[in-house]
Formats: sequence, C-alpha cells, structure tokens
Amino acid sequence: MRKRNSNRFELTVLGSSSATPSKKRYPSSQLLNIQEQLFLIDCGEGTQLRLFNQKVQWPQLNYILITHLHGDHVFGLPGLLNTISLYQLPQQINLYGPVGIQEFVRTNLRLSHSQIQYVLNITELDHNNPGRVDIDEELYFDFFPLDHHVPCIGYCFRYQSTRINLKKEILDQNPMTFSEIRQIKRGEDIVTKKGARISHEEALETKIIKKSFAYCSDTQYNESILPFIENVDLLYHETTYKNELHSKAKEMRHSTTSEAARIALKSGAKKLLTGHYSSRYIDIQELVDECKLIFPETILGIEGLTVKL
Amino acid sequence: MRKRNSNRFELTVLGSSSATPSKKRYPSSQLLNIQEQLFLIDCGEGTQLRLFNQKVQWPQLNYILITHLHGDHVFGLPGLLNTISLYQLPQQINLYGPVGIQEFVRTNLRLSHSQIQYVLNITELDHNNPGRVDIDEELYFDFFPLDHHVPCIGYCFRYQSTRINLKKEILDQNPMTFSEIRQIKRGEDIVTKKGARISHEEALETKIIKKSFAYCSDTQYNESILPFIENVDLLYHETTYKNELHSKAKEMRHSTTSEAARIALKSGAKKLLTGHYSSRYIDIQELVDECKLIFPETILGIEGLTVKL
Repeated sequence: MRKRNSNRFELTVLGSSSATPSKKRYPSSQLLNIQEQLFLIDCGEGTQLRLFNQKVQWPQLNYILITHLHGDHVFGLPGLLNTISLYQLPQQINLYGPVGIQEFVRTNLRLSHSQIQYVLNITELDHNNPGRVDIDEELYFDFFPLDHHVPCIGYCFRYQSTRINLKKEILDQNPMTFSEIRQIKRGEDIVTKKGARISHEEALETKIIKKSFAYCSDTQYNESILPFIENVDLLYHETTYKNELHSKAKEMRHSTTSEAARIALKSGAKKLLTGHYSSRYIDIQELVDECKLIFPETILGIEGLTVKL
Repeated sequence: MRKRNSNRFELTVLGSSSATPSKKRYPSSQLLNIQEQLFLIDCGEGTQLRLFNQKVQWPQLNYILITHLHGDHVFGLPGLLNTISLYQLPQQINLYGPVGIQEFVRTNLRLSHSQIQYVLNITELDHNNPGRVDIDEELYFDFFPLDHHVPCIGYCFRYQSTRINLKKEILDQNPMTFSEIRQIKRGEDIVTKKGARISHEEALETKIIKKSFAYCSDTQYNESILPFIENVDLLYHETTYKNELHSKAKEMRHSTTSEAARIALKSGAKKLLTGHYSSRYIDIQELVDECKLIFPETILGIEGLTVKL
C-alpha cells in the first residue's frame, strides 16, 4: 500500500547491462518506489542480491512487471519469488508479463519444489494490444508494444493526486503557528495574533501533483510508442549501442543512443535515462554524451543510481 | 579434453550458502578442474558471474552435474547455458541431474528464446539407483542417492592413471642431462659422462596416480553413502547447521557439523570440505571448529577457495 503522505517517487537502477553481464554491470532490472510501494521492472539473474543491497522492505514489493522473456530480463525471477517466501511476507505479488510468463514461473516453481507462502497473481498481457492496469484511483500503468525480435512490452506509470495547500502569499503576509495552519487545513477560519481574520476558503488552494515514468526496453527505434509515453517526467529508453553501430542495432532490433534521444525529444520527456549497454562498452559516459547532443537532459543509468522525481 | 601431462586436480568453491544468499556468500556451486577439463557441480543463481571471476576457459567446461532441483542449486543454470553460447564455444556440454532436469532446462531455454550454439546432452539419472558414468578410461564418476526432502544425488569422481618415472635413487646416484632423462624415458639405454651404463629397465618405474573427490549436498546424516565415497582425497559434505541445531537439521533433512565430520571419519576421507551454511551464521570458523573436534583435517569452504589435490 502506498503511504499517501509520502513524497517519494524514485527510480533505482539495479541492472544496466544487455545480454551478457560484465563484472560491474548486471542484467536488466529497475525498482520504482511510489510512496513506499515498490514496482520491480524486469528481473535479470541476481536481481535478488541487488534488492538486498537496496535494503528493500519485502512486504512493500507488490508488483513485478516483465517486458519480455529473454533470459537477461527474467532469469532472476524464480529465485526472487522463492527467496521472498523465506522473509517477511508481502500479502501478495501481482506479476505482469507477456504470454509465456505463466508457464515460465509455474514450471520453475513446480520443478524446484518451491513453496510460495503468499498470493502470487500472474497476468499475461497481450503484447499486440495496448491496455491499462489501474493500481488505485491515483495510479495506473499503461502497457504497449515495443519492437523487438520477440514479444516485448513497454510500461508507463502515471500518478496523479490533488493536495490541499495553504497559499504561499497568505502565509507570507500572515505568520501563523503550526496549530493555526492545521486549523485552516481542517476547514476552519481563524483570527491571527495580530487580529487578521483568515477564512479557509481564501487561504487554501488545490494543487495537482503529477509524476510519470516510462520503461522501454528492448526495442528498436519505433515512433509508434510515442502516444503511450507522452510528456513523462522520466523516460528509460534502452541505449544498447553507440551511433556507429546503427546497422548492428537494426539487425538486433535494439536502439542507438541517438535513436533513444530522438524518442525522448519527440515524446516530450523531461529526462532520459540510458541503459542496456552492450558489454563491448567500458566507458558508458560516451553513450550519454551522444544522447546529450540531441537531448541534453540525459542521465547516465548505472547500478545503484536513484533518480528522484 | 584433459591435458594428460597436466598435474592439475583442483576443486574451487563458487558458492557456499544454503537457500538464501547472503551478502558475501552465494548459493551452491563448485568447480572441479581435472587436467584442464572442467566439471561444474550445482549451479545456483549467479554462478556465471563466479565463473567469470575464475577466468574460466569456456571450451574446457564440458560437464555440469546437478544434485537436485532446489532453486539454490539450479537457478543459475539457464543463464549460464545461455551465456556460454555468446562466448567461445565448447564442443558440447553434458548435463547430468535428477529426473526433471530435462524439463527444467528445455522449458527455460524455449520460453526465453535462447539459441544454444553447441551440443547440449541432458541425462536424467535415477536418484534411487546408484550408477557410474565413464568420462574416459582414466576417469569416471559414481552417482548415488543422498537423503533429502526431494530426489537428490551425490557424486564421486575417481581418477586413476599410471606414469612412467625415473627412479629417484638412480637419478641421485647418476646425475643426468635432460636429454639423457628423455632418452631413458623413451626406452633407450644410456652411458653417462662418468661412464656408467644405465638400462631403461632398471631405471624406470611405474607410478600409479589416484585422485578422488566426492560431493554430498543436500543430505541428512546417512551411512548408506559410505560405500560410494570410500577413502576419497577430498570429501565435500554439507554442514548446514551447528550441533546445537541438531533437531532442526533432522527436520530440514540437512546435516550438522559433527554429522559431516563423522561421515568423513567413517568413509576414510583424507580431507573434509565444509559448506551450504545456514544464513544465520556469520562466523563460519565456528562450524569448522566443531568439525575438527571429530575430524581434524577439515577445510573451511568459502567462495574463491581452491583446494589442490
């Protein structure tokens, strides 16, 4: 459950490498924390160890979303589901992924004699037809097709909430005690020490809080995803290759740095997060530099990085 | 293929923890190097990264043996088999394990769209009936039932070879050049600089070289394994719990330190290697100390340790 008084909306990179893990980089996984509710996106081998390092509170992890069934995005899932059973339990885990995720998980758990001690709901999404899953009245995610060799799904989280705030100009003109502020927020009118009468109606305003994050990996450049990721605060779009390997990217149905940056620009994203680097690259900064030529607000995605939104 | 002029017979611990990995310990896996031919035994999640750290030559890895299908012994296997395909290829990998290993591997590879670029032979062993697999005329392994909650198999490798040596006393009495030594080893007689005539028949002797290693995890104390692991140079026997958790060990069908040590003593092992520690233990040395009270030649098994035989 989200803690609705929390301001936390954070994305943490757990793994930033593509197919073959290198010594310092791990296969794909990211953790989205929305007001202390955790959403794990992709789960490459070893993700459970990355979650230990993040000191994750297991009962907060209620959602796992898988983009596709390539091993570097999913081979950590059976171990994680199994390990969670040995810790403080979540009430339930809702797992989403493409067709096949059900057989993948159930077969692994059955053959490994795993005894899952919580409710595990598995939903197979149609990778050809976009759709929406409501988490609650303030939060949902859209899923939509990516363009890869195998069925692959992108996700976009959108959170919108209203908060009642005391207007800044009222507070500046009329210094108040905490007790007085609470009174007004409760809908009462007050008279300040200096004798000013302040009605809650003139003092309060409604503020809309919006946060959004889109996750697009693995995919080649395809503008059909633009409507689903419009104007997000943070866009993760894979940057497997540098520009010089443009034809390799096309062959492997992955994206280059510039392609990711163009998607960020065209979709109106505020920030772009890079990742899913080919293991040939030692210096990742060079990939980010290529993105920045097109989209300056590019963030280097690397294990342990947390982006606050 | 073994390099028959190599003296290497080494066991390296890749993972020493039981079910839940801790920050410094990884799930079960060990690597046996017999004259540059590699045998991987068990393959917990993340084993491929441990093998990277060992700078393994992938084409030397031709055998993988799995004891049982609990996740902490097998969840690293799909990722490893997949990753190997991206590197310099082995001609083939022969995989052995209990019934179910075939479905486990094939389902994971199929659903993850993995394209294995080498020959993968999978053999399901009957965990109720012991047997023998010949690697070649000098090397074999026996497999035999362990005593756990689920079908579980122990393995014992035995290598025996003969070498033709120049007798030490002959060499001491008659200093020779390398060239002269080679001549005798080829079966020629020689006359040394000092005029001594040395026939190859009197100078040469046949030496028998024997090496053996047994792997027993997971299992509760059971003397029925003794005939299969008789007099090995190195016995790995799980030591999940300290003695004080004797009844817990019985309940979980694991072994305590003293039970492992008693098996080592009764089987005539030269050395005992510990492992598969419960994650409750921070100081592993205490477990080894308990073993040593019964079996002094106990070695603390820990990630990265290599035991030369």
